[in-house]
Amino acid sequence: IAKEVAKLLEMKAQLGGDEGKHKFVLKTPKGTRDYSPKQMAIRERVFNAIITCFKRHGAEVIDTPVFELKETLTGKYGEDSKLIYDLKDQGGELLSLRYDLTVPFARYLAMNKITNIKRYHIAKVYRRDNPAMTRGRYREFYQCDFDIAGQFDPMIPDAECLKIVHEILSDLQLGDFLIKVNDRRILDGMFAVCGVPDSKFRTICSSVDKLDKMPWEEVRSEMVGEKGLSPKAADHIGEYVQLHGGLDLIERLLQDPKLSQNKLAKEGLGDMKLLFEYLTLFGITGKISFDLSLARGLDYYTGVIYEAVLLQQENDHVEEPVSVGSVAGGGRYDGLVGMFDPKGRKVPCVGVSIGIERIFSILEQRVEASEEKIRTTETQVLVASAQKKLLEERLKLISELWDAGVKAEVLYKKNPKLLNQLQYCEDTGIPLVAIVGEQELKDGVVKLRVVATREEVNVRRENLVEEIRMRTSR
Amino acid sequence: IAKEVAKLLEMKAQLGGDEGKHKFVLKTPKGTRDYSPKQMAIRERVFNAIITCFKRHGAEVIDTPVFELKETLTGKYGEDSKLIYDLKDQGGELLSLRYDLTVPFARYLAMNKITNIKRYHIAKVYRRDNPAMTRGRYREFYQCDFDIAGQFDPMIPDAECLKIVHEILSDLQLGDFLIKVNDRRILDGMFAVCGVPDSKFRTICSSVDKLDKMPWEEVRSEMVGEKGLSPKAADHIGEYVQLHGGLDLIERLLQDPKLSQNKLAKEGLGDMKLLFEYLTLFGITGKISFDLSLARGLDYYTGVIYEAVLLQQENDHVEEPVSVGSVAGGGRYDGLVGMFDPKGRKVPCVGVSIGIERIFSILEQRVEASEEKIRTTETQVLVASAQKKLLEERLKLISELWDAGVKAEVLYKKNPKLLNQLQYCEDTGIPLVAIVGEQELKDGVVKLRVVATREEVNVRRENLVEEIRMRTSR
Repeated sequence: IAKEVAKLLEMKAQLGGDEGKHKFVLKTPKGTRDYSPKQMAIRERVFNAIITCFKRHGAEVIDTPVFELKETLTGKYGEDSKLIYDLKDQGGELLSLRYDLTVPFARYLAMNKITNIKRYHIAKVYRRDNPAMTRGRYREFYQCDFDIAGQFDPMIPDAECLKIVHEILSDLQLGDFLIKVNDRRILDGMFAVCGVPDSKFRTICSSVDKLDKMPWEEVRSEMVGEKGLSPKAADHIGEYVQLHGGLDLIERLLQDPKLSQNKLAKEGLGDMKLLFEYLTLFGITGKISFDLSLARGLDYYTGVIYEAVLLQQENDHVEEPVSVGSVAGGGRYDGLVGMFDPKGRKVPCVGVSIGIERIFSILEQRVEASEEKIRTTETQVLVASAQKKLLEERLKLISELWDAGVKAEVLYKKNPKLLNQLQYCEDTGIPLVAIVGEQELKDGVVKLRVVATREEVNVRRENLVEEIRMRTSR
Repeated sequence: IAKEVAKLLEMKAQLGGDEGKHKFVLKTPKGTRDYSPKQMAIRERVFNAIITCFKRHGAEVIDTPVFELKETLTGKYGEDSKLIYDLKDQGGELLSLRYDLTVPFARYLAMNKITNIKRYHIAKVYRRDNPAMTRGRYREFYQCDFDIAGQFDPMIPDAECLKIVHEILSDLQLGDFLIKVNDRRILDGMFAVCGVPDSKFRTICSSVDKLDKMPWEEVRSEMVGEKGLSPKAADHIGEYVQLHGGLDLIERLLQDPKLSQNKLAKEGLGDMKLLFEYLTLFGITGKISFDLSLARGLDYYTGVIYEAVLLQQENDHVEEPVSVGSVAGGGRYDGLVGMFDPKGRKVPCVGVSIGIERIFSILEQRVEASEEKIRTTETQVLVASAQKKLLEERLKLISELWDAGVKAEVLYKKNPKLLNQLQYCEDTGIPLVAIVGEQELKDGVVKLRVVATREEVNVRRENLVEEIRMRTSR
């Protein structure tokens, strides 16, 4: 029956498609968007900055499929699993769109028995979240991930990940930012000393993760009301999660009578101290804050975690800068690869993910505001003619230019007006026009016109490529 | 009930995920693959060649979501529609993964009321086909599309598309190739004069499309047996579809007593003649064949169609070169945008799609055979130390280098052996090592070692960046 129904629905859909083809809504799916050429130009600038940084740190690059076996993603994302896009069962394997690039990376490592790699991966991921597109939150969005896998001495790769975030956010000139750092072991130790039962660690961690969007009172009532935590434990957590600072805070917590007795917390704090020493060598502690309220939603983190936020600066009267949202995040996940290995062999990993959508929104707004004119092509020269009946000559010339590697265009008209050809250059930013005419053909020259200055020179045809190159290289 | 079942299945899947997490098959979905860093290096070379060509022809770039509303794809692909991947109905819109980049492009034009654009788009598309991965046929694969939309004088943009295919295949040095060209109007005219009923045009066209994979006898029996065409009509088609040639063949068919009486065929042949004149100006007719057996499967073509195949050359004894498969294809589709426009307004389009998977397979095999060593990173220098306890000094130095834009790495060990550090450079192709030691620190210098020659020089620390730049620029 199910098959028959499917068939009928299919037929209905097809009929609907033919009959009513002008009726349906012309749009992209909810939470997604197209990128226009102008937006692509901005996007490529951002990607270039990010890729340049990843390569500066010696990363290789990999790619994985957009979907994974459904079971590959199962049990990796905790409460967020409900946001995974599944594919329809059309016979064969059950598939889901990737939710992030970290789980596919861990699957890749286990599958290929790789125990040592530093790689980046830039690709789209998918989450059936409530989109808030004006604030750069989409259902299809890019992640730019950099990860270091392998057994190394503590905190050196972790410190490099933070250095990378610092370099990229500085390079993109997005204004002031802050990188919050914490450690899952410190969180778990804190939960233990506050009297949270072991079985509630993950769910209470999820609640703490909401502190960047909700006030403490709401988070507390979720912990106590929904999740059944004792008010005393909740209040105890409440004291810890308002702490943030630097090396001084780490030292203070290492002396904390309760926390220092907890093995996990002590390990975490010891590593945090080492991390801050390395960050001092890198000269970036000024923008790093050890923040006990940082939790990160995902299940797979096991050690250091971090998140970068941009700080609002428009209003200088505000005493404490307000964060306008996370633009990067990551952490250590030493157990994830082991979940895929047939023998459970672990590969320690640490990484960072840059979320470019919000960055892109900011830069796009800035470009609009500045009225900066962005070129969307790289064309160096338009091949034009002043008289009629010269299409063949234009095609011959442009073919020569293309074959010599010159970026050239021609209007697709038999007899375009010179004015229209010049206007096209103005509109699209093409700097040069190569004009062929009867006289020029006789003389073996091409008239080269500089659009900006209207200067015109006759260039011998055999020197044209060289002349164009010279005039368009900066 | 359905909801309950779904819940139970979900629970079962989660349990399965936890209990049996080491049991499931560790793989990518059928018909897909990961790209390793080495494969990515080859892939980026191919992309670079293609993007360089597209930009040389003045194209802008756009991007669209990986999925579209299901109805956007409905009724566009004829018999191939069954290969579309649908997403599971998880509430909300019904979605499908894109099948090509052409339909999303047409949707984009109609949605944004664009009547004039030359753009490229490089992205993955999805087809639930039977994969043949050794021959470069995948379910997830890249398409590199270049299209020209707008009302222009006949065959000028069409000729440019063929020029682009010619440039890219020449540039990639894949060996000899042939670009087959035909026109849907010539095919339809041919069907008409052969006595194919109007209603059977599309399905008979699908049969003709199989001629590159099946002998004529099989195609004929499909036409007659499955599709109910008269044997006489089939035989008549059989005569035409063996014809291929150049301007001479076009001229001959323009004189063909039957074909020349058919309005569509006459239009198609007239345009084909014009196309060949432009291709002559571009100097590329040597690799172009007007071939009446070329049909192309997709429904949306309305004019010129083309397909590029690589020719096998290993065996010089073979008289006629054998094609090893299509690497590019495209054509004119003047009606597709109108299918999306609420008022049915048409935007004429012509384009070409480069299929890089097969190209990639060939280049990958060639690299393997040649034992060419491909670098997968761009690191210029490894920051190393000969003695112990210099981690801090290494981190300080590498931080300076990164901040100066130098591509640098450091081993993530507190006290790595010099030999291991040098070996790492050998393995990954890093050309320089910057060695810090007690003495160098005192003298304010860094020892710079050239890995290939083992030459070592002391460089003053303030000159190090300049020295590295000089030695790694070619």
